[in-house]
Formats: sequence, structure tokens, C-alpha cells
Amino acid sequence: MEPETIAVGTAGIVHAQFVTFAQPPHPMRLESGVELGPITLAYETYGTLNAARTNAILVLHALSGDAHAAGCLDTADGRVGWWDDCIGPGKAFDTDRLFVICSNVLGGCMGSTGPASINPASGRPYGLQFPVITIRDMVEAQRHLLDHLGIERLLAVVGGSMGGMQALQWAASYPERLRACMPLATTARLSPQTIALSEVGRQAIYRDPAWCQGNYYDGPRPDAGLSLARMIGHITYLSDQSMQQKFGRRLQSRQHYGFDFATEFAVESYLAHNGDAFTRRFDANTYLYVTKAMDYFDLTDNGAGVNRTLAEAFSEARDVCFLVVSFKSDWLYPSYQAQEIVKALTQVGADVTSCDLESTWGHDAFLLEVDTMTQLLRDFLRRVEQEQH
Amino acid sequence: MEPETIAVGTAGIVHAQFVTFAQPPHPMRLESGVELGPITLAYETYGTLNAARTNAILVLHALSGDAHAAGCLDTADGRVGWWDDCIGPGKAFDTDRLFVICSNVLGGCMGSTGPASINPASGRPYGLQFPVITIRDMVEAQRHLLDHLGIERLLAVVGGSMGGMQALQWAASYPERLRACMPLATTARLSPQTIALSEVGRQAIYRDPAWCQGNYYDGPRPDAGLSLARMIGHITYLSDQSMQQKFGRRLQSRQHYGFDFATEFAVESYLAHNGDAFTRRFDANTYLYVTKAMDYFDLTDNGAGVNRTLAEAFSEARDVCFLVVSFKSDWLYPSYQAQEIVKALTQVGADVTSCDLESTWGHDAFLLEVDTMTQLLRDFLRRVEQEQH
Repeated sequence: MEPETIAVGTAGIVHAQFVTFAQPPHPMRLESGVELGPITLAYETYGTLNAARTNAILVLHALSGDAHAAGCLDTADGRVGWWDDCIGPGKAFDTDRLFVICSNVLGGCMGSTGPASINPASGRPYGLQFPVITIRDMVEAQRHLLDHLGIERLLAVVGGSMGGMQALQWAASYPERLRACMPLATTARLSPQTIALSEVGRQAIYRDPAWCQGNYYDGPRPDAGLSLARMIGHITYLSDQSMQQKFGRRLQSRQHYGFDFATEFAVESYLAHNGDAFTRRFDANTYLYVTKAMDYFDLTDNGAGVNRTLAEAFSEARDVCFLVVSFKSDWLYPSYQAQEIVKALTQVGADVTSCDLESTWGHDAFLLEVDTMTQLLRDFLRRVEQEQH
Repeated sequence: MEPETIAVGTAGIVHAQFVTFAQPPHPMRLESGVELGPITLAYETYGTLNAARTNAILVLHALSGDAHAAGCLDTADGRVGWWDDCIGPGKAFDTDRLFVICSNVLGGCMGSTGPASINPASGRPYGLQFPVITIRDMVEAQRHLLDHLGIERLLAVVGGSMGGMQALQWAASYPERLRACMPLATTARLSPQTIALSEVGRQAIYRDPAWCQGNYYDGPRPDAGLSLARMIGHITYLSDQSMQQKFGRRLQSRQHYGFDFATEFAVESYLAHNGDAFTRRFDANTYLYVTKAMDYFDLTDNGAGVNRTLAEAFSEARDVCFLVVSFKSDWLYPSYQAQEIVKALTQVGADVTSCDLESTWGHDAFLLEVDTMTQLLRDFLRRVEQEQH
């Protein structure tokens, strides 16, 4: 596949690039001990890497994201990147000055190697033959991408939700390769409530007869299960208050109750629409793998099943500048979980800025509170850049 | 079916009683306008009705409850009633002094007429031919039961969750038949977040191929869908904090992550076990009807699609004594929703006691905080009894 380049203002957007590594006989050893290779990561870049290679930002996506973080795809639908609000000329991540990289995670379904990819051993899609991966494995794959791009040290890693977990893992695994780390609306270890929500999403997929133990690529897809999982997810991304504001008890297209089981409340329509739309762009097996990676995420486990404190996990990260952002109405990754991160970073003597923001938008606030986030991210980055010089 | 009587101390427990009413040609007119009849309610009683018929308490169950609120069933498993902690000699509802009635709701699957009952018109189970019912319809059916028992005025109605909605509906519809009303962990109108959670539970059932549009009574049952709905429900009955305390990130029967998709976290096992167990005692169609009744519950809608204030809904209830209880960690029916009820009752001049209790147990606290609830319910009831004399 050839990279496709579109010039936008002074900032170049390069869509659909790929890097392949871990070629046999040198596969990547995963956290599980299983070896995987070759591995391809799909990525995009925005802006220009400076000569000193000091202006690179690695943007890490959440569960349902992909490498297409900014700009428009040159396709019929001209799909806009998932964080276009914050990446571009003059935006929070100003591509007139910064070089922004976003890759689809290992295990993903948007160009990176994942369960829908062809297993070289069988010539057929991996399905459940794909090994269970972890957030650490995702970060390890991104490290290969940085090596490929010749970037020794990032100006920053940034991500919300699962992207924030990757950002924290970067700070724990490769602090020497970061100047700054910006985990947003995230946690250092998944709570049992969030594991429970992940599990019901997975169960919705398992229980769809079209799932066929993950071997569905030649037949009908488990859309019913995947869309149900997505509906559950969407409830967790909003808040009680934002749902009151956005939907209330409004009926979608009726004046009065229908006294039947049709979709009638506006909130039901919203979930149905979003569940449906998701099946047109996402792979059910990737949903399983990526949620499992999140469930396993626990920085107080050193990877060999040995407990450590969160401060111990960040013990080498004292030279990294952190911006930790949480939102008061986010019940998926509540503010107290961000405070645990801040406390541990303070213990190791890292430079930490933390903001617990007022917002009614719940977990989605990290994408929706554009003005606040722009100011916060821009000011923080400017300070990091100044200190670099 | 013959009633079965077991003497327990001085308080009689009468299990498995039935009342049938709304016999054609005099069916009950439901809120939807549809006519339904005959209707049977299953009920149990505990204690003895006094000669003046002034000591009766109507206990109203939640989504998954039934008429068996206290004592042991004379069956192999000796199943204990769902609120046995609070109903019995010397307990909060002291059956040495009080006469306690609990009936399975209209639409239920534990002896009352519901979608699994035989439709006299076809000789086959109703399935989706059963009309959509409302909380008001449930209360209307209970009124027939009271008439049958010859009880003009209840000492109190009490219920948590959906039982609390029925209690509030009693106060709105038949305030003259109550001295006291005790809505616990409930709301006067379902929020969009709770409607959304109901809807994903229903979708889990619809999407189970065994559901067959509700016509499954001759074949395999939609257990996969029903248990998934129940798993979602259980997440909402607990709280982030109680799940941390009860499960943490503990693995159920492994020392280390298995790097596969087996059920491995303790919280996943808990959900699987409870989902499974539910299918052995509950009917999937009843789950649909009862959640829909809750979604429609909105005391600010007068039933004819006309909005009114909550105070207007309670305008005739100023002579009823209320005990409104909420729990700080209940995110399904958050405390602010109880405060709306209290505010409206105060506006109409009713006698209101309200308690927003500290508990980490989330929504389930109304059943689990036995000591606190016992003291609260007992003291409140004693005052109401004294004022009656």
C-alpha cells in the first residue's frame, strides 16, 4: 500500500502509512510470552519533523479509534479524524510547529495487525488464534514505529481513555524517550466495575451465533453482538447529567407512548444508531482483544505477577513532565483514579500538573470540551517546549 | 391451587395464595386503553389482620422479586423470602403486630398474570400478545387485591427500586387508602440513563435467536439474552466502591492472567453466576414488560400525555406520612432524585421524613443495610401507628 499525501496549509498530512517489523525469525515477544510477527502498524502523520527531531508528539487512541486522528480522508465520505478539533495548524497540537504521529494499536482493525489480519501460518484470518495482547504490547509496537521514524525522544505522548493507559505505560516503560506525558480521562489500573462492563460487552459478542468462536470472516458478521457491546459502551461514555440534557425523556418520533417494544425514547434511538454505525467500521474480535488488554492494565503489577506501588511503576519517570486531566462527571474513570496517579508521580518527584475539570459530559468530555482542552494542552506544551530549549 | 399455611411463632405465614378478578365481560382497562382479564395475582401474607383491619402493610417488590417476601418455602430448596431480613416476628415489619401482604406484580412470572400465562383467547401463552403494562396498572391490580382482602386503608405501602415506584404511584392514585408510604432507593420518573440501561437489557433478549419474538415457550428459552440482561443489571445494583471491596482485581481461580478469553476475574465470575441463576427462575418476556413499565414511569405525566409538576401528582397525598430513603452510592436512582420527591411532598404539605444514607453498597443497599433499615423503618412505623390511635 502506497502512502497518500495531502498538503494542508503549511502542515503536511500523510495518511495511510505502514511500518512492518518483528519479521520472523525475530518476532516480538509479547507480555504473555507468545511470539508474534511480522507486525504491521498503520499510522498517519501531521506536520513536519524538525531537523533536530525534537518536535514529535505521539497521539494514542481510545478503544474505538484508529490512526486517522486529523484531517479529511480523500474518500467519498471524507471522514474527519477523531481528534481533528485538537490537531492541525493553530490548534492545540499546532502542526505548523509540531510533528504529530498517530498509529492504530496492535490488535486493531484499521490497518494494524490484529485478529482480522491474515495469519501467515494458515493463510487465513487469525480470529482467536491471535494472541491476547496488553497495553504494554501496544506500547512496545509503537516503540518500533518511533525507531523506524528515527525519533529518539518524543516531545510528548498524549491520549485519553485507553490512549491515556498507553501514555502512562510509555512513562513507566520508556521514560527516557519522553519529555512529557498527558494522560486524559484515564486510570493506572482498571477497576472491577470497568472490567465488569468490558465483560458484558464481550459476552454480547460471544453470544451472537454469527460470532462462531471468532471464525466469521467468510460469513455473516456478529453485528448484533458488536452493536450491543457498543450500546453499553456509549452509556458509560456519557453521564446521568449529560443524558438528561441531551435526551431527557423525549420520544424520538412519537407524541405519546406507543405501548409496544419499538425504539421510542430519543436515548434508545441514539444507542441504536451508534451501535449500528459501529458495526460498519469495527471488527468484533478486535473489540474482544482491546477490551481484554484494558482489563489487564494495572501498573501496580510489574508484568511478572509481582505487586508494586504505583510510585514504583513511575520510579524512572521523574524527569518527565505530566499533565493529568480528569473530569468530575466521568464515572468510567472517576477523578479519584487520576488523583492516585498524581499522588504516585508526586512521590517520585516528577513535575505534575493536574486538572479535575468541571464538565457534565462524562467520560467523553476529553473529546468534547474542546476550548478548555485546547487551552490546557497548548499552555502545557508551550511550557515543555520552552524548558526544552 | 390451594393455599398452604405454615405457623411461625405467633405469626402465620400463608404462602401461595391467589386472587382472580377482572373477569370477562368486566376486564380491567389498562393505562394503554387495552382491556385485560381475567387477571390473577399471586400473593403471600405474614402475620394476622387485626379486627379493625388497620395493621396491614403492602410490600411491593423490585424488578426480579416475587410474592415470596419472607419465611421459607416448603420445598426442597427451602427458598428464603427476598426481604426476610425485615419481615417476621420482632423484625422491622413485626408480624407479631402487623399483617404484611406481598403480591407478585401484574406482568410477573411467579404466579401473577403475565406474558407467560395462558391467553384465554388462544389457549397458548400470551408472549408479545400480552399488553404493555405500567406501574399504574400494577397498582390498580393491587387495589383489587386489597378489596378482596377487605382492607379499606393500609397502614403503609413500602418498596425499594421498582417497588418504590409502585409505592409512589399508590400515593398519587389512592392516597386515601394509605396512612404511610415508604419509597426506598427509587425515583418519581426514570432517567434517560436508566432507560438506556433497560433498553440494552431488552436488546440482549431480542437478539437471542431463541427469543423468537417472544414465542419460545414450546422450545429452548432465551437464556443467553436474559442472563446477559441480568449481568448488566447487577453492575447497576452495586457501586464502584462496593465492587472494589467485594472483588477488587482478584482472579477467581487463577494465580496469573491466563491470556485467553476465559472468565477469570472474580467480578466476571460473579456476573456469570448471577446471570445463569436468574434464567432458572425468571421469564425473559416478563423482563421486557417490567423494564418497559419502569421506563414509562413518570409521575409528572398524568397518563394522558399532559405534563404536571411532581407536587401536582401528590396534591391529594398531604395526609400521608412519607419516609423517603436514598443511598449516597446508589447511581441507578441517585439521591438527587429522592430529593425531588421530598421537595414536591414538602410543597403539598405532607409529613415527610427523608434520609440520604451513607452506604458503599450502591442501589442494593436498601436490601443489604439491614440494621440501619430495620431501625429506620421500625421507628417510622411506630410513630405512624401511634398517630393512628
